[in-house]
Amino acid sequence: MTFEARYEIYRTAAEDAIGKVLVRLPKEPPILAESMRYSLLAGGKRIRPVLFFAVLDAFGLAYGEETDLAAAIECIHTYSLIHDDLPALDNDALRRGKPSNHIVFGEANALLAGDALLSFAFELILSAAERGERHLWAAQELAHAAGASGMVAGQSADLLYTREEAGEEALAFIYDNKTAQMIAAPLVMAARLAGADDGAYRTFGVLLGRLFQLTDDILDVTGGAALGKTVGKDSAACKPTAVRLFGLAEAQRRAALLAARCREQLASLTGAEFLRGIVDLVATRDH
Amino acid sequence: MTFEARYEIYRTAAEDAIGKVLVRLPKEPPILAESMRYSLLAGGKRIRPVLFFAVLDAFGLAYGEETDLAAAIECIHTYSLIHDDLPALDNDALRRGKPSNHIVFGEANALLAGDALLSFAFELILSAAERGERHLWAAQELAHAAGASGMVAGQSADLLYTREEAGEEALAFIYDNKTAQMIAAPLVMAARLAGADDGAYRTFGVLLGRLFQLTDDILDVTGGAALGKTVGKDSAACKPTAVRLFGLAEAQRRAALLAARCREQLASLTGAEFLRGIVDLVATRDH
Repeated sequence: MTFEARYEIYRTAAEDAIGKVLVRLPKEPPILAESMRYSLLAGGKRIRPVLFFAVLDAFGLAYGEETDLAAAIECIHTYSLIHDDLPALDNDALRRGKPSNHIVFGEANALLAGDALLSFAFELILSAAERGERHLWAAQELAHAAGASGMVAGQSADLLYTREEAGEEALAFIYDNKTAQMIAAPLVMAARLAGADDGAYRTFGVLLGRLFQLTDDILDVTGGAALGKTVGKDSAACKPTAVRLFGLAEAQRRAALLAARCREQLASLTGAEFLRGIVDLVATRDH
Repeated sequence: MTFEARYEIYRTAAEDAIGKVLVRLPKEPPILAESMRYSLLAGGKRIRPVLFFAVLDAFGLAYGEETDLAAAIECIHTYSLIHDDLPALDNDALRRGKPSNHIVFGEANALLAGDALLSFAFELILSAAERGERHLWAAQELAHAAGASGMVAGQSADLLYTREEAGEEALAFIYDNKTAQMIAAPLVMAARLAGADDGAYRTFGVLLGRLFQLTDDILDVTGGAALGKTVGKDSAACKPTAVRLFGLAEAQRRAALLAARCREQLASLTGAEFLRGIVDLVATRDH
């Protein structure tokens, strides 16, 4: 099977997982579920649950049974995008080629949709945790990656260094926390469910997450309309990016180096073949 | 021991629980922990963890060992206040007599402080869930009460009916979800940890929560500077309140009725003596 066909299988499973938990969205008031659903179903590559399913599958686990954790991963990612797009933060009117949540539902409803998605994710996580120790351990990884010492710390640092000079160390902190932790988490979670050593998956996931953010920064400069978000937004907002710090050529050189390091790290991983395809996808992505 | 002395013991234990988890706040960037700490340590009556500890104590459980869940309750309450005060929602510059989080740290940092506190609460909850089935079950109650079908749904409905006429049914929905679920949750959680039937605690907690919100609405009209927040704010913002719907006199009559129903419900509860004091406190509170 080609990499693309396999990706599509996992992506479809991720959509199914999301579809399955939608029935548990709040009934009242209708605008709350509507605003949560709007962003949750806005598409995207679903790379985080795809990574989760791929590693579970590589270990021979029935990934179709892990809908709660897969949906929780995507709920947390979606909440972060909604809050990130708010006027107080990035003030972005466009997300995945569609109007951002606050453009459609207003700022107050968007704020609450984000809060609701984060809370909903933890309800799903706690439901998964009922299934035993490995599930609880996987849930803890997700909570940590999304949390105050993970993604939110990265967002906070990103904010701190907007319009202020970020050095290499600050930029590395932002990359690792804002992006890499939530890319590594699904891999670590899958390893924990499989009872495998999660260290090698974390190392690979963090490298992949850095590559993901680096190509994102590069695409902000080189990307076309296919990007589905406002191009040149980061530089206009003086966001801390690798392109701003090192220049485009050096950022591209570093991306190539990171991709090579990702591929080296694959040797020790179960599921390496598919993950190699993911590295190529991220390294060459154009949206 | 007087009710006041006992309240002070539980309140101090709640402060200790919060103090104990502060060391686990994120180290970087400093402004994130600082903004979380600012609102978390802004004082208040700590009524939610007090209720939790009181019922644990009534069942003879070592409440001092439940710091993670107690602190999580207060982290969730605090995040809801920070987001509620934001310009997009209530736009309140004053909270507990001090400048609101966004006045001190700016809107973007306040948004992230709220996100971080909610995430942090769930890290604490998942840490508590390690201790066994009863703890997981208690954690699930908290997640549900705070979540998309609980407090956030109440906030969303509150927003929906601001500047729009809320009938009695809509107001009941707002009271029960915005406020009562998070007042009932600590009682239900304690009952679950004790292995007791949680139904009677939920019934009492919901009544107490309604009373709490009703006296809050009344205080918005009658309260003085002791309130520590902007008086007359609800009516100025055309918030859906019992006073707006029924008038002050009828709201006060309903509060007295609710207090009586709370006291009736006490008969079936372990820990009734202290909880009776709580009903009196809420019914006669002036801040």
